[in-house]
Amino acid sequence: MKFATFSINGTPTWGIIEGGLAFDLGGRFADLKACIAAGALQDIGDHAMRTGGHSLADITWLPVIPNPDKVLCVGLNYEMHRQETGRDVVAHPTIFARFANSQTGHLAPMVRPHVSTELDYEGELAIIIGKPGRYIEPDAAFAHVAGYACYNDGSVRDWQRHSHQFIPGKNFPGTGAFGPWMVTPDDIGDLDALRLQTRVNGAVVQEAQLGQMIFDIPSVIAYCSAFTRLEPGDVIATGTPGGVGAKRKPPLWLAPGDVVEVEIDEIGLLRNTVADESPG
Amino acid sequence: MKFATFSINGTPTWGIIEGGLAFDLGGRFADLKACIAAGALQDIGDHAMRTGGHSLADITWLPVIPNPDKVLCVGLNYEMHRQETGRDVVAHPTIFARFANSQTGHLAPMVRPHVSTELDYEGELAIIIGKPGRYIEPDAAFAHVAGYACYNDGSVRDWQRHSHQFIPGKNFPGTGAFGPWMVTPDDIGDLDALRLQTRVNGAVVQEAQLGQMIFDIPSVIAYCSAFTRLEPGDVIATGTPGGVGAKRKPPLWLAPGDVVEVEIDEIGLLRNTVADESPG
Repeated sequence: MKFATFSINGTPTWGIIEGGLAFDLGGRFADLKACIAAGALQDIGDHAMRTGGHSLADITWLPVIPNPDKVLCVGLNYEMHRQETGRDVVAHPTIFARFANSQTGHLAPMVRPHVSTELDYEGELAIIIGKPGRYIEPDAAFAHVAGYACYNDGSVRDWQRHSHQFIPGKNFPGTGAFGPWMVTPDDIGDLDALRLQTRVNGAVVQEAQLGQMIFDIPSVIAYCSAFTRLEPGDVIATGTPGGVGAKRKPPLWLAPGDVVEVEIDEIGLLRNTVADESPG
Repeated sequence: MKFATFSINGTPTWGIIEGGLAFDLGGRFADLKACIAAGALQDIGDHAMRTGGHSLADITWLPVIPNPDKVLCVGLNYEMHRQETGRDVVAHPTIFARFANSQTGHLAPMVRPHVSTELDYEGELAIIIGKPGRYIEPDAAFAHVAGYACYNDGSVRDWQRHSHQFIPGKNFPGTGAFGPWMVTPDDIGDLDALRLQTRVNGAVVQEAQLGQMIFDIPSVIAYCSAFTRLEPGDVIATGTPGGVGAKRKPPLWLAPGDVVEVEIDEIGLLRNTVADESPG
């Protein structure tokens, strides 16, 4: 099943996406995170009435989880990307964080701030946490996953390199695209075999299979849950493959009007058009 | 005035600390963050009834803002600390983040997780944001400050050094002590002249004047507000002076039973006793 967060006529809600329609479930739980926290995804998916669906053309997509307690991001989790950045091999995942207010939805603008011209894409698989936990063992990790989505961990590279800490370059508003929806694990076959592709104006700029991650999903969940308690709705962006714009010669920076797509087999296609920050 | 968050008989609330008493204002706003967001600190401070005060011995201190939207931390913001860590001089503040669930209150345990023996202190001045803003100019920055508090940016050093990103070592639950209260700016004279001191079991381990920060408060607020919108109740921990335990020879790691104090003139004294993580 596919769950999403969206607005209809300006009112935020959430629901199921099925057969090209969006079914509004805002009356059942306040938001998708609350539904996940209640452990009610399966029940709602099985039994919610499929009436009064809205055409997808009539909804505005919002970040799949607009209000996560935490967005954890794994850096350097594909070998080709590690090599292109010149970073050392490390024994543990490299973890940084995004704030919820840096996120944006499918088809919404990906915003280039006026203080930089170095906006870059990073296509990624996002995990949405279902069951909370601390010190989760790797072999129990998949039981803590509510679903998967596409993520574009948009990065303002000069600000990311102002110091050795990535936070500033990873938190500009409107740079973290997350959508269009979350797919529950029962709809997905062999995760490792799925292909992730990032395209800019139709040209493929990143491509990998999810099985090429250096630290796999169970390892990442286990590691993160050791230093912080994972909560329902928490997001873990699992890292980007090689091919980022910053490491191309010449660099490929995103500019207003560029169309960026992150597509993962069986999960979805996230599309955003780059726009300059609106003044004021 | 001093504002704090605390619980009475297990019920969380917030209020004014005055004359050795805690005045419960939970009926006025849901929490201190909501009062700040409403711009009501001054009015409440001037007019709230001072009746029914609770002895400070009867309250349990909670983090000053238990539910900030963001906790931003400045690394390497005092020259002696930069030198002891061997880090390069940089042109911009080094910013990382803590999650709200890593915080703890005055007199609450500072928790050493069972996965590490390298728990370290970092005494700091915390800024609490009052007025929200983006792209705040340095000369307008102080108008965005609701108050100041003591912060102990407790760090699990081996996890902080697992990769080049600090997040894991800075987010273990119960490691970020924040309290006892927030002091409004009108109660403080010359901020730069205030002395910050960290003590372990009574011995002074860190000492500096706030004016010794490399990036001063207006610069830090301006920088952070360029990459993220600051919200009422957001916390900025402004960095720690030299003398951290990790850089001593031999290292001074915090162990269960140790008493750590962060004291800043005119602001307060934050005291925590280190405890091992409780099992389960």
